[in-house]
Amino acid sequence: MENQTIFFNHRGVYIRDTASIVGPKESHGPIASYFDKTFQDDILGQKSYEMAEIKMHTSGLKYLMNKTKLTPDQVDAFIAGDLLDEIVGCNFTMREFPTSFLGVYNACATFGEALGIGGMMIDGGFADTVVCSTSSHFSSAERQYRYPLELGNQRTPLAQWTVTAMGATMLTPQKSPVRLECTTFGRVVDFGVTDVNNMGAAMAPAARETLLTHLKATGRTPKDYDLILTGDLGDAGSRLFRKIVSEKGVDLDENYQDCGVLIYNREAQDVGQGGSGAGCSSSVFNSYIYKNMLLGKWKRVLLMPTGALISKMSSLLGESVPGICHAVSFVRVE
Amino acid sequence: MENQTIFFNHRGVYIRDTASIVGPKESHGPIASYFDKTFQDDILGQKSYEMAEIKMHTSGLKYLMNKTKLTPDQVDAFIAGDLLDEIVGCNFTMREFPTSFLGVYNACATFGEALGIGGMMIDGGFADTVVCSTSSHFSSAERQYRYPLELGNQRTPLAQWTVTAMGATMLTPQKSPVRLECTTFGRVVDFGVTDVNNMGAAMAPAARETLLTHLKATGRTPKDYDLILTGDLGDAGSRLFRKIVSEKGVDLDENYQDCGVLIYNREAQDVGQGGSGAGCSSSVFNSYIYKNMLLGKWKRVLLMPTGALISKMSSLLGESVPGICHAVSFVRVE
Repeated sequence: MENQTIFFNHRGVYIRDTASIVGPKESHGPIASYFDKTFQDDILGQKSYEMAEIKMHTSGLKYLMNKTKLTPDQVDAFIAGDLLDEIVGCNFTMREFPTSFLGVYNACATFGEALGIGGMMIDGGFADTVVCSTSSHFSSAERQYRYPLELGNQRTPLAQWTVTAMGATMLTPQKSPVRLECTTFGRVVDFGVTDVNNMGAAMAPAARETLLTHLKATGRTPKDYDLILTGDLGDAGSRLFRKIVSEKGVDLDENYQDCGVLIYNREAQDVGQGGSGAGCSSSVFNSYIYKNMLLGKWKRVLLMPTGALISKMSSLLGESVPGICHAVSFVRVE
Repeated sequence: MENQTIFFNHRGVYIRDTASIVGPKESHGPIASYFDKTFQDDILGQKSYEMAEIKMHTSGLKYLMNKTKLTPDQVDAFIAGDLLDEIVGCNFTMREFPTSFLGVYNACATFGEALGIGGMMIDGGFADTVVCSTSSHFSSAERQYRYPLELGNQRTPLAQWTVTAMGATMLTPQKSPVRLECTTFGRVVDFGVTDVNNMGAAMAPAARETLLTHLKATGRTPKDYDLILTGDLGDAGSRLFRKIVSEKGVDLDENYQDCGVLIYNREAQDVGQGGSGAGCSSSVFNSYIYKNMLLGKWKRVLLMPTGALISKMSSLLGESVPGICHAVSFVRVE
């Protein structure tokens, strides 16, 4: 493992299919038509937002099973994470699936970590079918990390909006149009940001670190990708990312975008700097990105989910917000 | 991946070295002499128990680096988890190590999950040096999951005592005396137990499921192991485990033990049913078990870390306590 990067060159790793489900706000954003399913009642008939998130995640995985005509026992492993304490949403979701479960957590970078582990399972010949998924829910995240919604607190200018969404990718060694080519597993980077409402700034240094390491490992430049996509830096965060990457002599063109910016119409939707959450990069990748790769719009995509590694407790202790970012490279196979 | 089980037969996976650090109570238990380091002031000079847990985990990993004369950049990846919300102890621990970080969470079964993923990274040829570690701290766990210590709440008869401990295993493809032979990744099993003070009963069904699946996958019986070791079922939980396994026609002899029982002297130490926590199986394995395998006491050991997949919130929602268990088989190489 040179430069934190793993190439999947043994059996090869391919996407068999994907699933995405999003909530009301996401279903009115600019890429809404790409999601498999949307819902308007964000409590989904449950008694709490946490149970709603579990229902959304479970439904998404069942939808993926139906789409692929597989039963859960034909899946070797589910690798999943979310933002709830003790990733309890996934734990309860996985009650429905009698299959090996690997719980993962790197905050909003979790989807990248899951794809990297899933890729190794497939490429190393350890498994033939692996499902990687993450979720987040605006209302369960707000009350866990911030304030009760009922308080009606004002949001700060640099705040982002946790997406209500799940996304899942099924990986297989069987050839298909989109290949998972390599992964750069990021490290924890802490620039000492203590404003928990400015996650973009906290995560941007980790994203830079991972991008530069990935380019070094692969001998590539940003131009080798048709699309470079951070997870959820938001508008200000992704502008900061572009700037600090440029300070290291690497320029990002129009081919750089951010899932948190793509998912909403910031002008019209009152989402602060844009979307965030473990379900942000997974729902955007498994819909808009994957479907457009199938259509041939992009041939090479570098997905870089970004995570802010905090908890309620760490903020109360006055600690800073370390970031992490994992990069995953996808190629449209001819 | 047949029967949820992966065999590491490509390059082979071996233990290069281990580390373990435990707190005051553990350092007065029956296996105290096997731990690498012990400490008596359980706040370790920090301003909170959470920061003390982070210091303990960091110290243990640095100790392992010193022991093996490696620098963190010579490690390909750290795979780590703990019981704090958002595994925040590991997140802050990993600020000290400029190395790829994969955060994992399956409650007290996390160490088994980490070893399984680390095993795949080594055996698949993706990495040459991986460190798997977990931690827990009695006082940070009590105040997060239960009550402030200052309340002085009475403990219920089936309660367990979260160990203050960390344990780490360094994996490598280079031959050494102890080999990681295979892993059975468990699934979530929910028998509807709602008493959050009876974790042993909540986890025992998952442990049975994983043991039976592992035996089926390997064509073995319990007699093929010199030691079968659950993570932290505690005394009542491990008796229940023995009973429900027997109901399926599989008998466990004297070769079955539980890390949570081994780590304390229950008669003298007021620990309820015994130890629990993500640091329980990792500190016991990386000291007492590993060192005795080196000495030739046991040739084949099946380590089965067990986890209860709850959060404060899931209990408040009235939800049950699902369990999970991953099995990892070790062999003393001649």
